[in-house]
Amino acid sequence: MCALSMNSIFLLTVELLNFHSLQSDLVNHCCSFPLRQHVRSLVVLCLCCRLRMSAEENPAAEPAPVIDVQGDGRWMSQHNRFVQECKDAEPDVLFVGDSMVQLMQQYEVWRELFSPLHALNFGVGGDTTCNVLWRLQNGELDNIRPRVRKRFFFICSNSFNSICYEVKCVFNAGIAFLFVFPQVVVLWVGTNNHEHTADQVAGGILAIVQLLLSRLPKCKIIVLGLLPRGEFPNPLREKNAAVNNLLRTSLPQLGPVQLIDVGGGFVHSDGTISSRDMFDFLHLTASAYRTISTSLHELLLQLLEETPQERRASLV
Amino acid sequence: MCALSMNSIFLLTVELLNFHSLQSDLVNHCCSFPLRQHVRSLVVLCLCCRLRMSAEENPAAEPAPVIDVQGDGRWMSQHNRFVQECKDAEPDVLFVGDSMVQLMQQYEVWRELFSPLHALNFGVGGDTTCNVLWRLQNGELDNIRPRVRKRFFFICSNSFNSICYEVKCVFNAGIAFLFVFPQVVVLWVGTNNHEHTADQVAGGILAIVQLLLSRLPKCKIIVLGLLPRGEFPNPLREKNAAVNNLLRTSLPQLGPVQLIDVGGGFVHSDGTISSRDMFDFLHLTASAYRTISTSLHELLLQLLEETPQERRASLV
Repeated sequence: MCALSMNSIFLLTVELLNFHSLQSDLVNHCCSFPLRQHVRSLVVLCLCCRLRMSAEENPAAEPAPVIDVQGDGRWMSQHNRFVQECKDAEPDVLFVGDSMVQLMQQYEVWRELFSPLHALNFGVGGDTTCNVLWRLQNGELDNIRPRVRKRFFFICSNSFNSICYEVKCVFNAGIAFLFVFPQVVVLWVGTNNHEHTADQVAGGILAIVQLLLSRLPKCKIIVLGLLPRGEFPNPLREKNAAVNNLLRTSLPQLGPVQLIDVGGGFVHSDGTISSRDMFDFLHLTASAYRTISTSLHELLLQLLEETPQERRASLV
Repeated sequence: MCALSMNSIFLLTVELLNFHSLQSDLVNHCCSFPLRQHVRSLVVLCLCCRLRMSAEENPAAEPAPVIDVQGDGRWMSQHNRFVQECKDAEPDVLFVGDSMVQLMQQYEVWRELFSPLHALNFGVGGDTTCNVLWRLQNGELDNIRPRVRKRFFFICSNSFNSICYEVKCVFNAGIAFLFVFPQVVVLWVGTNNHEHTADQVAGGILAIVQLLLSRLPKCKIIVLGLLPRGEFPNPLREKNAAVNNLLRTSLPQLGPVQLIDVGGGFVHSDGTISSRDMFDFLHLTASAYRTISTSLHELLLQLLEETPQERRASLV
């Protein structure tokens, strides 16, 4: 095992990712237990390095606006709307991405499940990772104001020192102001990156996540995996699956980020996707949005529910 | 007035169309009453000739499939689905067009107002007049079967000769079979023809209408006018308005065809369009679809309701 060079481990990455986890038999058979952990760590390290290194020269990680070739200025109008929208809003959840995000807002499930969570939707049809990067770097995060929560402090004794009770109150006297940034960002983009490889797309998504973490340091991030597309098996499905595999391993290394693969149920046993789920074999129908929204909504509720430790930490 | 050459009348057409009707003061002041009618007829004739002539060498009237540059075969999958879909269906109403048609089916208003009318939806996002022409010429009208209605005949005397009663019945004995083609086609396409002029787009739409009339000779056609687009006034709005003007005059010459302009209420007094109506300043929100669907639904009900004369004619 010790003879395995870094290059070999690097090549192992691809194999390992094909098994959808690092519990691959390949590693288990190559080395004894104490070494397995090191190999796995190295594999993850190599993968992250590869994606991060490529991000520096990655066309999918270069911020770029959409050029208004059609002449109606719609893309910039949408961007400007988002920049303005969060001036008055105090979002707890921010959805960012392409048409998969944008269309979600048009269905009843958005009003039912996500609007009550104080969610904003920054989805633009056709966007790539480059376009989302540009939007986030050019104003869509600038106006996101701290959310102001009014809470009473009871600092009577040591035993009550760390206890706070949230009270809906219009009075200012005796109230502590707690500043909380948007708590969760849901990111769903990448299926429109037709000119980029799976590595590049994953690198582009990582670049967006890194930007979000640097601009919103207290937020948690959910990345939705790219969906399969097309009625029958095709190269784009394989590419999107490869992007998800790369993200599954690399995202947790960045911080409080997790990937949800919501596309598992859409491919039937014969390899087809039904128009009942994707009306154009890409975009979801209302019922399919409801299907994927259940698990997403549960996770959001879970993440939005602060633990007592987190409350104390945010009050310090 | 008599000195007005055909060329002058031809040029007049553009001016007249800018007034949204042929009741232009220009004509009224140019000539006395008897001549006005002739001038108007000539203007209409010239317009129709111009659009039809250009249709022969009109790039917007050339049937063309969408090239699958992305590699997931979605466009052809949708086309094939439509070809299959009408094999088992007996549509009374057929919607054909681009994403404006396609997205309508995703909203509740479709299930509420149009599904009960036995409507099929052949909308494909991004389609131009060329793509719709290709689809209709390559199978989407081939499998549209005659709708079989079972009706009892009472041919007892002359007074009852033309009276028929529709009866829901599973027995064949004593029942006359009435073959009725899809009664109404709703066409909505043209806003994606970015490479074509207003004249060419109108010519492309006319070509589709002519194809529909030749393939479904008993059907009536509703053409929905192109909507304004973009948050602010822009050249594409002007072009779409010009297409509507051209269609308003030329469509009625083709037969039982009428234009409905459903976009009148979306442009506010300051020239802007709200994202509450068009979420991306092009595609309609659920509430906007409901707004435009009311008048369309009423017209469809009106057209689908056969007059006694039409019933008799179809029974002969």
